Amino acid sequence: MTSQVAARLQALGMSIPQVVAPVASYVPAVRTGSLVFTAGQLPFVDGQLTVTGRLGAEVGVEQAADLARICALNALAAVGTVVDSLDDVVRIVKVVGFVASTPDFFDQPTVVNGASDLLIAALGDAGRHARSAVGMAVLPRNAPVEVELIVEVRS
Amino acid sequence: MTSQVAARLQALGMSIPQVVAPVASYVPAVRTGSLVFTAGQLPFVDGQLTVTGRLGAEVGVEQAADLARICALNALAAVGTVVDSLDDVVRIVKVVGFVASTPDFFDQPTVVNGASDLLIAALGDAGRHARSAVGMAVLPRNAPVEVELIVEVRS
Amino acid sequence: MTSQVAARLQALGMSIPQVVAPVASYVPAVRTGSLVFTAGQLPFVDGQLTVTGRLGAEVGVEQAADLARICALNALAAVGTVVDSLDDVVRIVKVVGFVASTPDFFDQPTVVNGASDLLIAALGDAGRHARSAVGMAVLPRNAPVEVELIVEVRS
Repeated sequence: MTSQVAARLQALGMSIPQVVAPVASYVPAVRTGSLVFTAGQLPFVDGQLTVTGRLGAEVGVEQAADLARICALNALAAVGTVVDSLDDVVRIVKVVGFVASTPDFFDQPTVVNGASDLLIAALGDAGRHARSAVGMAVLPRNAPVEVELIVEVRS
Repeated sequence: MTSQVAARLQALGMSIPQVVAPVASYVPAVRTGSLVFTAGQLPFVDGQLTVTGRLGAEVGVEQAADLARICALNALAAVGTVVDSLDDVVRIVKVVGFVASTPDFFDQPTVVNGASDLLIAALGDAGRHARSAVGMAVLPRNAPVEVELIVEVRS
Repeated sequence: MTSQVAARLQALGMSIPQVVAPVASYVPAVRTGSLVFTAGQLPFVDGQLTVTGRLGAEVGVEQAADLARICALNALAAVGTVVDSLDDVVRIVKVVGFVASTPDFFDQPTVVNGASDLLIAALGDAGRHARSAVGMAVLPRNAPVEVELIVEVRS
């Protein structure tokens, strides 16, 4: 059965992807009590990074915001591995957006908005979260963006 | 009514500022059960960054420790948006201090002490926390420091 | 009495070290309800960093993975300060691995596997966790790796 979350995304022309297999010794998400902690999600599409590099160099802001959106979709897929349905999400609690940046790129918030806006589109008020956006020296596989979530789910 | 936290800070010549409006699509803090997760706080004073740049270049350690203190005050203001009173804080659980750093600056802990010491001054033993301090390539708006909190509050 | 965790590590030729004294104004770990949040752990051995520098420059991947393993042991020691026994660990929930990296080093996951693999060796399935691995401009004291944990413990 399709979740309301999936239905909202479908109306926007998007869908929850297959969960990304961790690139190393870990799992996509862990549930503890009513909280779910996801692994950091790279913007994989069908197992591939479509764009690599840093903001301020090879990658533009709009392009990276779109990648952050993909990270958020992958993060929802990760949450989906530990709940029956994404409709069990009570609230997106926290988003951390890691943005690979040259030292003269200061607009990490606009990049991470790609993730934040997707979560609000998918979940409405339940998608509104606290957030940190920070500029990284580099990310795994030269990905421009990585996003992790903390999510409250129904007991 | 003034909280004891505010009273302690006042005795030290400080006060809880107005909460900083998020610079993007998110909220200052989210409460889930007995935990509050804040957004990453930049050292805004009246909506402005008074200092920009990185440690190891334009910004000195003492100056940055003072900015970390401001981040912590802003973080307490963020916590205040989801509790009745800051006296509902049971414990500061975790602090992450992000310090914009050149690759040859190694003293992130002294910078983040500005936040840690403020929290202990404001809250006493309840202010003692676990902490990570890390060196970032760059932070939003070229801020030298960003601080986020996880806080336990009364049910 | 030796915990099963310590026994497993002993069988692998390892042991839980003395807890590392925080290098600043904080504590090694805080427990809140059934969760323990550790401070970020540097790869101290008997109070010293045996290796310094960044991945992509002075430090190699295998060497850094070994340092990440030491960070994880130090993190277990930190957890031990707030539980009766490490056998009270129900699950390693989340690992964040911070890897000091030049902008052209992309293999943070292999480095952080040093921590992940240790946790699984020490705890079995309870050691399987969600994880983020990110590339930092620099870390305190020029450490190559820093690791923090979120752990679920028995009530």
